[in-house]
Amino acid sequence: MPELRKDPITGRWVIIATDRAKRPSDFIRQPVPPPSARVCPFDYGNEHKTPPEVLAYRNGGGRDEPGWRVRVVPNKFPVLGIEGDLNRVGEGMYDKMAGVGANEVIIESPEHVMTMGELPEKQIEEVLWAYKERVSDLKRDHRFRYILIFRNHGEAAGASLEHPHSQLIALPIVPQRVKEEVDGARQFYDAKERCIFCDIIREENRAGLRLVTETERFTVIQPYAARFPFETWILPKRHESHFEESDAPTLANLAWILRATIRKMDRALERPAYNLMLHSAPVRETALPYYHWHFEIIPKLTRVAGFEWGSGFYVNPTPPEESAKFLRDAGLP
Amino acid sequence: MPELRKDPITGRWVIIATDRAKRPSDFIRQPVPPPSARVCPFDYGNEHKTPPEVLAYRNGGGRDEPGWRVRVVPNKFPVLGIEGDLNRVGEGMYDKMAGVGANEVIIESPEHVMTMGELPEKQIEEVLWAYKERVSDLKRDHRFRYILIFRNHGEAAGASLEHPHSQLIALPIVPQRVKEEVDGARQFYDAKERCIFCDIIREENRAGLRLVTETERFTVIQPYAARFPFETWILPKRHESHFEESDAPTLANLAWILRATIRKMDRALERPAYNLMLHSAPVRETALPYYHWHFEIIPKLTRVAGFEWGSGFYVNPTPPEESAKFLRDAGLP
Repeated sequence: MPELRKDPITGRWVIIATDRAKRPSDFIRQPVPPPSARVCPFDYGNEHKTPPEVLAYRNGGGRDEPGWRVRVVPNKFPVLGIEGDLNRVGEGMYDKMAGVGANEVIIESPEHVMTMGELPEKQIEEVLWAYKERVSDLKRDHRFRYILIFRNHGEAAGASLEHPHSQLIALPIVPQRVKEEVDGARQFYDAKERCIFCDIIREENRAGLRLVTETERFTVIQPYAARFPFETWILPKRHESHFEESDAPTLANLAWILRATIRKMDRALERPAYNLMLHSAPVRETALPYYHWHFEIIPKLTRVAGFEWGSGFYVNPTPPEESAKFLRDAGLP
Repeated sequence: MPELRKDPITGRWVIIATDRAKRPSDFIRQPVPPPSARVCPFDYGNEHKTPPEVLAYRNGGGRDEPGWRVRVVPNKFPVLGIEGDLNRVGEGMYDKMAGVGANEVIIESPEHVMTMGELPEKQIEEVLWAYKERVSDLKRDHRFRYILIFRNHGEAAGASLEHPHSQLIALPIVPQRVKEEVDGARQFYDAKERCIFCDIIREENRAGLRLVTETERFTVIQPYAARFPFETWILPKRHESHFEESDAPTLANLAWILRATIRKMDRALERPAYNLMLHSAPVRETALPYYHWHFEIIPKLTRVAGFEWGSGFYVNPTPPEESAKFLRDAGLP
């Protein structure tokens, strides 16, 4: 008999197929092909093919020249425009505003053929510093209420360029999925006066069933009501609502665990396509006692987004207890 | 400059790219291939390959024999089990219950190679009657709170069998996406004492910009804050919260408009893969003044689910005003 499990944060119910659980080998294997060597706007020498950089960590060279280690540029085809006022207006019975926002690309390495699991730990640490710096800079713009950071790896996950990169989108609104999570966490806090994420970390460390790995500062788990097979969360052990407040030792430790988690997935699931998302508190809020920033990683293991597109309902063919064990056992290549 | 538009029902904001809007010809065309002639468990003579039928409309033949026009069977690989009690229990800090529910397949025609747009109108009308009958029967089971009906067409939309069919899932909970919609509609009603869907129908008929077509009893529109290119809704003009209460003339008129809408899409978008979902009120509720049943059709026009998987945020590259015009102009093949 399958189980219905409730996500304690959002209240969402998910079907977890427990009898005919899929093992990693049951999923369609579509390893992301190694990057080709074709000319790419993110390579050294092509700096003029992107908009001018807004941040770069360099060994040498001047602005928009080779010599950088990590480089952040506005997206050449942004989904939002950076200029102008929000200009909120009604349109008949509806509400709209100008699509004002920022859309930047964090180029994670000058090496075209590197994946995140292959990048040196130090390099990933610098990428995390770039996230922190860009968020800290953009949050000074009072038009923005939320800053999304995400990474799509592989065409199946929506990546259109293979050069290792992440994206940042600063929005004048708080997205619905974030709102659900923040509201759910606040309701828990109102009732219990504790952060629900801190409770989850304690519970998962105690039970151990869904624990993937941990370090001094981070816990990696698969959530109890995982929506997708091998959905994995990385949570800081110390309560902190905003990612951009992380200090240097935290970012160093995060680089290690993020790399280790991706490498485990690459090993257990044969270099899958995946989405990685940073969930952090809305930028206009001060430190929140009830929200806890974290990363979510969702490998794309089924040929299509699947059942939930059609039904509007999540069905997960693999209990997180089993998939967490696979990642635990994958070791650290 | 793109626009941010707010869905008036759920409060969700969506980015609509208005400048570099994609035209239908800009999307990747991956027409669903015509069905092959391979042996299929839903064909005449293979009735023993499915679980015993729970409903059939027949020209002749006995139970589980050929001669049916529409046939409903339990899914051989159900996501939920029909037997047993809900058995709600806590598990540490979490909540779960047994995955009790029904998962049925509505086989829409004995013809393997038919698509919904090609089925005769009368045949679609019988499929709608089968929906109504199955929902009416299953709602008498007091364990069920919601009944989902959906249709995945084409592999890109999650269909694993090509024979024309829909699915039904009866759930002991109300899915999150439905809850969002019902809660939003209730809040509007609390403030205005009007159904928000009735307001939308009036507004769209008045403005005409996002109107695809209409009949005596139905309006077909593309919603103001469409999440996906060519997202299309079919709404009954008369307020009714539960689909299963529809009378015979309504189902006859619905068959016509559903077929016409699919045919317009097949023509304008070259037989795309799509998901069709019936949104109806939770089955334990009596007639609701604030909720309005409707169909939602989402063609799969991009190679991957795309941006929103990565970002947790919807970006629609085509304003509904433009895509609605394409469907209006597609005529009725």
